[in-house]
Amino acid sequence: MKKDLDALMEKAGLDALLISGSATHNPAMYYFTGNVHVSQGDLIKLRGQEPVLFCNSMEREEAARSGLATKNLAEYRYPELLKQTGGDPAQATALRYQKMFADIGLTKGTLSIYGKMEAGQSFAVFNALQALLPDIEILGETQDPVLMLARETKDANELEHTRKMGAVTVEIVSRTAAFLQSHKAKEGVLINEAGNPLTIGDVKRKINQWAIELGVENPHGVIFAIGRDAGVPHSTGNPEDVLELGKTIVFDIFLQEPGGGYHFDFTRTWCLGFASEEVQALYEDVREVFDKLMNEEMKANMGLKTLQDRTCDLFEEQGHETIRQNPLIEEGYVHSIGHGLGLDVHELPFVRPPEGVLKPGVIVTIEPGLYYPSRGMGCRLEDTVFVHADGQIEVLADYPHDLVLEIEIN
Amino acid sequence: MKKDLDALMEKAGLDALLISGSATHNPAMYYFTGNVHVSQGDLIKLRGQEPVLFCNSMEREEAARSGLATKNLAEYRYPELLKQTGGDPAQATALRYQKMFADIGLTKGTLSIYGKMEAGQSFAVFNALQALLPDIEILGETQDPVLMLARETKDANELEHTRKMGAVTVEIVSRTAAFLQSHKAKEGVLINEAGNPLTIGDVKRKINQWAIELGVENPHGVIFAIGRDAGVPHSTGNPEDVLELGKTIVFDIFLQEPGGGYHFDFTRTWCLGFASEEVQALYEDVREVFDKLMNEEMKANMGLKTLQDRTCDLFEEQGHETIRQNPLIEEGYVHSIGHGLGLDVHELPFVRPPEGVLKPGVIVTIEPGLYYPSRGMGCRLEDTVFVHADGQIEVLADYPHDLVLEIEIN
Repeated sequence: MKKDLDALMEKAGLDALLISGSATHNPAMYYFTGNVHVSQGDLIKLRGQEPVLFCNSMEREEAARSGLATKNLAEYRYPELLKQTGGDPAQATALRYQKMFADIGLTKGTLSIYGKMEAGQSFAVFNALQALLPDIEILGETQDPVLMLARETKDANELEHTRKMGAVTVEIVSRTAAFLQSHKAKEGVLINEAGNPLTIGDVKRKINQWAIELGVENPHGVIFAIGRDAGVPHSTGNPEDVLELGKTIVFDIFLQEPGGGYHFDFTRTWCLGFASEEVQALYEDVREVFDKLMNEEMKANMGLKTLQDRTCDLFEEQGHETIRQNPLIEEGYVHSIGHGLGLDVHELPFVRPPEGVLKPGVIVTIEPGLYYPSRGMGCRLEDTVFVHADGQIEVLADYPHDLVLEIEIN
Repeated sequence: MKKDLDALMEKAGLDALLISGSATHNPAMYYFTGNVHVSQGDLIKLRGQEPVLFCNSMEREEAARSGLATKNLAEYRYPELLKQTGGDPAQATALRYQKMFADIGLTKGTLSIYGKMEAGQSFAVFNALQALLPDIEILGETQDPVLMLARETKDANELEHTRKMGAVTVEIVSRTAAFLQSHKAKEGVLINEAGNPLTIGDVKRKINQWAIELGVENPHGVIFAIGRDAGVPHSTGNPEDVLELGKTIVFDIFLQEPGGGYHFDFTRTWCLGFASEEVQALYEDVREVFDKLMNEEMKANMGLKTLQDRTCDLFEEQGHETIRQNPLIEEGYVHSIGHGLGLDVHELPFVRPPEGVLKPGVIVTIEPGLYYPSRGMGCRLEDTVFVHADGQIEVLADYPHDLVLEIEIN
């Protein structure tokens, strides 16, 4: 949590954090600023002190809405610095940082850098800055960055934001089911009022309209994939595909608060009208594993790798191949059991090393699935859960896990 | 243009480009891949050769939709590399790059890096890679990066995409005007059917719904700012503000193709019902400068700094203070006359050094404005133009520049 940041910085031996870039759609910056329209800024946090946001004068009012102390970047007269360096933007930006650091009393110690930037720019600017400031050690943390460790556990406010996104998500999922069921089937596919086949593109457009109406963003798109595409975990679904009865539809929706805020992550697998025995069996295998994980296996303070191993055990007992047996498989259980989510749709804790733990405060997805593209099908079920201080694990948005959506035949 | 890339690389002494990150909302990657759902990949282009896209096996089908040659990142067995480095992600990622480079024959020369990444990650990974590969010089280009130079001029396909976004933009602007005019005024503000004041939030929601309906994205939000906010160029407008008659409304809309494609950029200033003499005079000053720039001043192959200077001349002749006189001013003409746009909403050419030029192939905005927050008003007019090979300068979407929107009084 944010309140742990100073302690985490001390533990990691960090004296300062520098976060660069936009306030929106830039999780490290948004974590401090919230949803304000600052297109380019620098936030510096010294250990034990409140952060300071440097921004352009044109964005001063928006920056102030963050509630943070702000400083005007224009005062550092970048055009003059550029001239002084013979027109070298990396050197000029480094010189500007040097002045900014001096202004807030950062003259030595260890500085960790954050923020979404062009790779070439951060490489050039921070190497130039490192050469300029030998008393400051610039670090790119790639393993358990301090800010990600702080963000791994959520405070009450973040939980509330996530809950609200969960409520919006199930509202949109309900509307999607009702929308599909408002169509009749003809010759095995859903048809619209004009008598033409409904398409996945039509469904996605409705989902996007509901997202706007309900005031949320869908920046990563939605997965609504049918048949063989449902068997390829990250196929997003072909917009021209029609909605054939009896085929698995993997519907994975990961909405975000406006401006790049908190996410929710949720998957159901549906079959329109009916499910063949083969599809029903696939679903039941996933459902059995899902229910066992949710009701028996998953415990607070458990390692996610342990949960992944148990998931592989369970799927292997059912006779499916798993990614544990072969990291290159494309059929069977081919991914991780879940991940943390928050300002990033994938964030700590993770299954992959360093192993994440279901410690109190984390928000994680639980998403077992089976994929058989060669047999034209796939199935995944996913809920988002929160681990309470007392160890209770709460599903943050309830919605039925049923496979078949009843459809009227024309 | 993309076809110039090999020549531009040769001129800059670059042997290879490496672009990392997502395909969507990552202009450097999107430039090659187009709109495909690849959440994390690496694209390498050797000079004189076609680019190769490395992606995760889960995203192999989506990656193939780009039409590029693809390779599976899983083959480089990152988990083993991580173990080998004692769990150091920067070292392990650098080792993976080393293997990838060897596979495609990149063993020496100069490599420029691109792509939106976390600053700390690119700093750590590419410094580790540089240490590992002394025969390859890794560069972060910060001045006129080769890829930005290629992207500065647009080919016929890019122009077509921009034109389509222009058509969508004026459709949405027309709908916005009609929506406002469908409301009556009472006690000086627009009211809705329920008799309550219409708000800026209501207008923005409609704009977002039309964007979805017309299949475009609005990732940066829209500026719809009234009164004093209209006088602060990058105030986006307060959603709770009511629509008061006679106040300037700056409506700046910069939509983008889905997935992070091409932009359009467009501004009108409106007054609902009537304009006071003071507001009318402000508008006429901006309109006069706008018309002079469009009809007399602007020529193909002109420097944008020259155009900015001419804009300052014209505004100063009218008696307004300009940013040329004082870079810190907040009243008068306080910004640049325009900028290139494409996959980024701000890209080459720019007014700021190194000075951009209106060379054939560029798409730029022309956007003079005057701002008086202390007097509760601001005005900006903006069109997007293309410079043809024969020097003709074409406005890419026509729409009236009028100030006053007639409103029925209740």
